[in-house]
Amino acid sequence: MAGQDGGQDGGQDSEQGGSYVEKGGFNRDMNYVPDRITQDGRRPEHGPVEGELWPVEPGRYRLVAAAACPWANRAIIVRGLLGLQDVISMGLTGPTHDERSWTFDLDEGGRDPVLGYERLQEAYLKRFPDYSRGITVPAMVEESSGELVTNDFPWITHDFFHEWRDFHSADAPDLWPTDLREEMEEVMKRVFTEVNNGVYRCGFAGDQESYQDAYDRLWTAMDWLEERLASRRFLMGDAITEADVRLFTTLARFDAVYHGHFKANRVKLTEMPQLWGYARDLFQTAGFGETIDFAQIKTHYYVVHKDINPTQVVPAGPEPDVWLEPHGRG
Amino acid sequence: MAGQDGGQDGGQDSEQGGSYVEKGGFNRDMNYVPDRITQDGRRPEHGPVEGELWPVEPGRYRLVAAAACPWANRAIIVRGLLGLQDVISMGLTGPTHDERSWTFDLDEGGRDPVLGYERLQEAYLKRFPDYSRGITVPAMVEESSGELVTNDFPWITHDFFHEWRDFHSADAPDLWPTDLREEMEEVMKRVFTEVNNGVYRCGFAGDQESYQDAYDRLWTAMDWLEERLASRRFLMGDAITEADVRLFTTLARFDAVYHGHFKANRVKLTEMPQLWGYARDLFQTAGFGETIDFAQIKTHYYVVHKDINPTQVVPAGPEPDVWLEPHGRG
Repeated sequence: MAGQDGGQDGGQDSEQGGSYVEKGGFNRDMNYVPDRITQDGRRPEHGPVEGELWPVEPGRYRLVAAAACPWANRAIIVRGLLGLQDVISMGLTGPTHDERSWTFDLDEGGRDPVLGYERLQEAYLKRFPDYSRGITVPAMVEESSGELVTNDFPWITHDFFHEWRDFHSADAPDLWPTDLREEMEEVMKRVFTEVNNGVYRCGFAGDQESYQDAYDRLWTAMDWLEERLASRRFLMGDAITEADVRLFTTLARFDAVYHGHFKANRVKLTEMPQLWGYARDLFQTAGFGETIDFAQIKTHYYVVHKDINPTQVVPAGPEPDVWLEPHGRG
Repeated sequence: MAGQDGGQDGGQDSEQGGSYVEKGGFNRDMNYVPDRITQDGRRPEHGPVEGELWPVEPGRYRLVAAAACPWANRAIIVRGLLGLQDVISMGLTGPTHDERSWTFDLDEGGRDPVLGYERLQEAYLKRFPDYSRGITVPAMVEESSGELVTNDFPWITHDFFHEWRDFHSADAPDLWPTDLREEMEEVMKRVFTEVNNGVYRCGFAGDQESYQDAYDRLWTAMDWLEERLASRRFLMGDAITEADVRLFTTLARFDAVYHGHFKANRVKLTEMPQLWGYARDLFQTAGFGETIDFAQIKTHYYVVHKDINPTQVVPAGPEPDVWLEPHGRG
């Protein structure tokens, strides 16, 4: 299965309508199109090869993302941090989607200006005419053919770093320090199962027992992170890594969505001193905060998840100004 | 209409199943059984006489309440503060109710030990066989006949003070200081429309516009209270009055229910320094905190309001220990 090799996480925001709540607990659909984009189309150094290999080539691919989605948000951030904006174009869908797909309703005429699509689903169907799984972001699409290349999100950001090195900007951060890789993968795995996906498990629990189990797991992990960040500025030490990107996109949504909508409400993020300082530290770092659109984030969750918010009313709070307060770290 | 005379508020927690969400905004049912229980059954000094007058008499009446309900919680607190426990008995329903009525599911055999009823509805029907409105708490019931006397909650607590004076304990607080009555009624009216009922207006708004209007009104009032309490220990000055009881029962539910479930989420109560200190001050005063049952409160709202919480999952947070922290007031 995609995303399991090498300690990589996996996960899918298969939010294209339908019901999310599951009796006995929420299980994330873990099936992706597992293609990889690698230097010269060679076999990648890390991770599985379960699909086709595509060659790195400036101007050939388009990242389709949604500012609302935490999994897509990772790719938006990493592309920016590495300075890949000129070699990988980006299309952004709106915050909500209909039963069929994320849609390009933010674009003029409701179509992506490069792909010409109204729905991301069209790229999936162009490649696989019978595709019936979730239409997810982030997705890498070949511009010329309009075909989906991959939606296997942990490997998308991984390969932005490892395979597109020749095109990184000179000041690109080392998001995957070689000597930390093993520990980093352990941290990212726990962050994925317990936090990134843990909040969804709280929100989509169909019964009290599943919810309580999800809540306990989430807060055990939050306490672990709070303690870890008491002695480290970032998750792996003094420098920002991919692990921080992956935690950040969940923390940015915590008080705005997960606290109330997903009932992840032991406390707000703002009540966890280390985590809150850390989250603001990242938010105030170039490449992070400017990718966060609280209005789109709230609209996405509260409108799309009609089965847990039938009125689809979007809360007005919390006020986001607190993200700009001094973080006192570093 | 009951509850409009003399600046008294009115409101009804007509939560006996059915739908609460209303397009165009939530409107509280304001019709009660307007009978009064007065000293010697005489005409009361304050308020309307639109129903029958019943004489104050120790051992004759039973207060039926629910710890979960903020309107009933007022009556539980006032009865205790005034020391009326020996002259007015009390029956408590469970936190949830079926389509028909609040039920006595906390009692052995599921029946109130004095009235013998399974459902509060039986007291309403005993008095009015065709009664078709909401079955609400608090309710005063005549023990001997089992008939409902009144459910007109603002007058129930008012009359506990004004009409049952002969039976108050020696150290009963002056909940209605004569010289403050006029200002107090203005304060209570604003607290009722904007806060006590304002949170419901947020939660049951059926569309974004109604919600935004409700949210703005609520937080305008919360800011007013925050400012007022910066220069006063209690709402009317140095001593606790009925106005404090009425605000307290909403504040006690704020972070546990209204913040997430009703989307009253600009900030948590714990983030409003004056209001939070004030709320803890009251919580830690004899007669207040011990009437608050957070488990019943959360169960009530999250289970009964299935139209805004379809899974009926009850959040595990927030942790209530913070209510016992030093309040720093007084």
